[in-house]
Amino acid sequence: MTSFSEIRYASLAKQVMQRCDELGKISQCSDYLDRRYLTTEHKAANALVGGWLQDAGMTTWQDEAGNLWGRYESKKPDAKRFILGSHLDTVPNGGKYDGMLGVIAPLTLIKAFNQYGIEFPFHLDIVGFGDEEGTRFSSTLLGSRALTGQWEKDWEHVEDDDGISLKQALEEFGLAFDSVLNAAIDKTNLLGYLELHIEQGPVLENQNMPVGIVSGIAGAKRFDFTVQGMAGHAGTVPMPLRQDALCATSEMILMVEKIATQQDIVATVGRIANRPNGVNVISGLTEFSLDIRSASDDKREAALDDILKGFQHIATKRNVTLSSKQTHSASAVHCDGALQSILKEAISESNYSPLTLLSGAGHDAMAIADICPVAMLFMRCEKGISHHPAEAIMESDVEVTLEVLGRALRKIEV
Amino acid sequence: MTSFSEIRYASLAKQVMQRCDELGKISQCSDYLDRRYLTTEHKAANALVGGWLQDAGMTTWQDEAGNLWGRYESKKPDAKRFILGSHLDTVPNGGKYDGMLGVIAPLTLIKAFNQYGIEFPFHLDIVGFGDEEGTRFSSTLLGSRALTGQWEKDWEHVEDDDGISLKQALEEFGLAFDSVLNAAIDKTNLLGYLELHIEQGPVLENQNMPVGIVSGIAGAKRFDFTVQGMAGHAGTVPMPLRQDALCATSEMILMVEKIATQQDIVATVGRIANRPNGVNVISGLTEFSLDIRSASDDKREAALDDILKGFQHIATKRNVTLSSKQTHSASAVHCDGALQSILKEAISESNYSPLTLLSGAGHDAMAIADICPVAMLFMRCEKGISHHPAEAIMESDVEVTLEVLGRALRKIEV
Repeated sequence: MTSFSEIRYASLAKQVMQRCDELGKISQCSDYLDRRYLTTEHKAANALVGGWLQDAGMTTWQDEAGNLWGRYESKKPDAKRFILGSHLDTVPNGGKYDGMLGVIAPLTLIKAFNQYGIEFPFHLDIVGFGDEEGTRFSSTLLGSRALTGQWEKDWEHVEDDDGISLKQALEEFGLAFDSVLNAAIDKTNLLGYLELHIEQGPVLENQNMPVGIVSGIAGAKRFDFTVQGMAGHAGTVPMPLRQDALCATSEMILMVEKIATQQDIVATVGRIANRPNGVNVISGLTEFSLDIRSASDDKREAALDDILKGFQHIATKRNVTLSSKQTHSASAVHCDGALQSILKEAISESNYSPLTLLSGAGHDAMAIADICPVAMLFMRCEKGISHHPAEAIMESDVEVTLEVLGRALRKIEV
Repeated sequence: MTSFSEIRYASLAKQVMQRCDELGKISQCSDYLDRRYLTTEHKAANALVGGWLQDAGMTTWQDEAGNLWGRYESKKPDAKRFILGSHLDTVPNGGKYDGMLGVIAPLTLIKAFNQYGIEFPFHLDIVGFGDEEGTRFSSTLLGSRALTGQWEKDWEHVEDDDGISLKQALEEFGLAFDSVLNAAIDKTNLLGYLELHIEQGPVLENQNMPVGIVSGIAGAKRFDFTVQGMAGHAGTVPMPLRQDALCATSEMILMVEKIATQQDIVATVGRIANRPNGVNVISGLTEFSLDIRSASDDKREAALDDILKGFQHIATKRNVTLSSKQTHSASAVHCDGALQSILKEAISESNYSPLTLLSGAGHDAMAIADICPVAMLFMRCEKGISHHPAEAIMESDVEVTLEVLGRALRKIEV
């Protein structure tokens, strides 16, 4: 395969950085990057990226959900499809790599494939999903769920902050709610889906590695808890007579941290409210959230069980009342073993250790896992920061990533 | 002293309850009790209570700070003064016993003294302070501090929520800022000050005792702390790599509780703010308050030292940054030993155990301690609740309290 050796990854990486900068300028807000589903900026992003797809020698189209597609066609008769992609939408005040990198890097690589006449025994498709973040309609993965046929009839009435329904927004974009399910794709000729994404965490930076293989996407549950104690005067109630809700909550927060650490999952109390929250008043009531995730649903449930038992023990011991409400539940997704092996080999051949890590955040691959084998390649980002203008990557990491992607695609068996 | 045996304490207690109800109706707010310094309601309260003082056979006057006075005159030439009293102002949405009980109960008792011709070898003065809570001008004990000459020149410009200065408010009340220091009293002829107050805590209720002797009023310090950690995605940052500000703060809160309990002081984290406070975001920053009190300044300082060292240890261990600011400092006040002994004897003679307890809350007695020996008698209140409409006392406890007060006053030596 002499042709592969001609690819100049450093030059491609530079172009990827430039294109991320350019796409990052398309925003519905002048102060920061904000690009949501079915907006005119979504349309502008599809037009810009669509031009790059065509420039890479790909045929392009937009599906019934507003997802942008490109195909690097195989000459093989009855070729199956392998999909590369990620999302083109952002959170408000987001960064320019989360999502976009997973579209721009592969299409820039394919431009080189086209340039050097590299062919594949399958159609190499690129998809840029219109909605992953779920910011506009408070429902995530709308783009990828359209591909898997998971859209629900009663979504037509969900509204954005301005009271525009999803149905109306689709129409204004030139689409029709009743046709979205036509975006669902035939899974019988799908070889797999590979998503490149920034890590959004500090593991790769900590290990000084440019890329890592994702073993799975964590399942998650979320709860809201309320601890009812007894408010009182900070000066007059002796310590042994207190029913301090904030002290009870503090013990619960540390128990979450301890159990998560011991049982190798992640669990977070990110939100807390305290009442009456006065400097000289003992806390009478707290409300706090729990977010608990693991690649293994069994491990997560076991840890959750320990946490809930521990909470009850603390509440009883401290004579406070605990109540809880589950607010979210999603099962874990496992990345395909064969695709993981291909990525490991590709990374090793690029002279890096094939580090495997879990994705704690959700991704389009979670939805696509319903219809075909999925894999994810994580790329190092600065300080693990995402969903923030400070999101940053290194051009040299993009270079390694492109090389790994190129090596991996060669290894995919039909 | 046959005359004392004629006093019908049960009947007096009933009148005390009725008078507390009546005074509790004078409020600047129609929804709840709220009576602040130098308002028309302050004036109305002085008029009502002034009438009761006169009804008790006392001469009355209002001093230059708006405090209400009554004197049950001694026939003894060159008689010294003994002061009974508390405050007539309330917090917003307050109760009808905090402060008022310490004015109404003694004046109702003196009415009986007058009725049965009971005389004392000293003037028995009653004071109803105009401001103890400090709600209007964010500065506590204005009434009692006028008596001790502790008013400061630059207070004339402090303003209430409506932008009315203390100087202006005094004028509208018929007083003059520059004359307030004339309210300072001659300490050379003062025998002492005794303040009856509801406990505002659960100790007496817990011990099933109607009254208790206050050994001292806790000194207090307050701080604001900030913990700077690192925000991050709840799903993507492994537990060992986190710098979770809320986890660090939780450990600090439990350390405060542990040290306070072990070292027999009270310390409270009553206020907390968390940033960014999102369900799926690791806490990046917290701000929280510390209120620490003890009857012993040395014990409080020793505990504070341990707490501050512990905080720093936790911050270092968890790789977060701690900063702090002291916002309040008041030294502890010791109640007079001789007056405490008198109260103990009086309680024993009324067939109750003389329970001694600390006042964790501040009181007018703190200021008055600067000019004469002070003592405080605490009366049980329901569930220790104060500063709330649910503030409640039992008529039978008032009966015991009046008897104890009567016995104690007889024991005071000139």
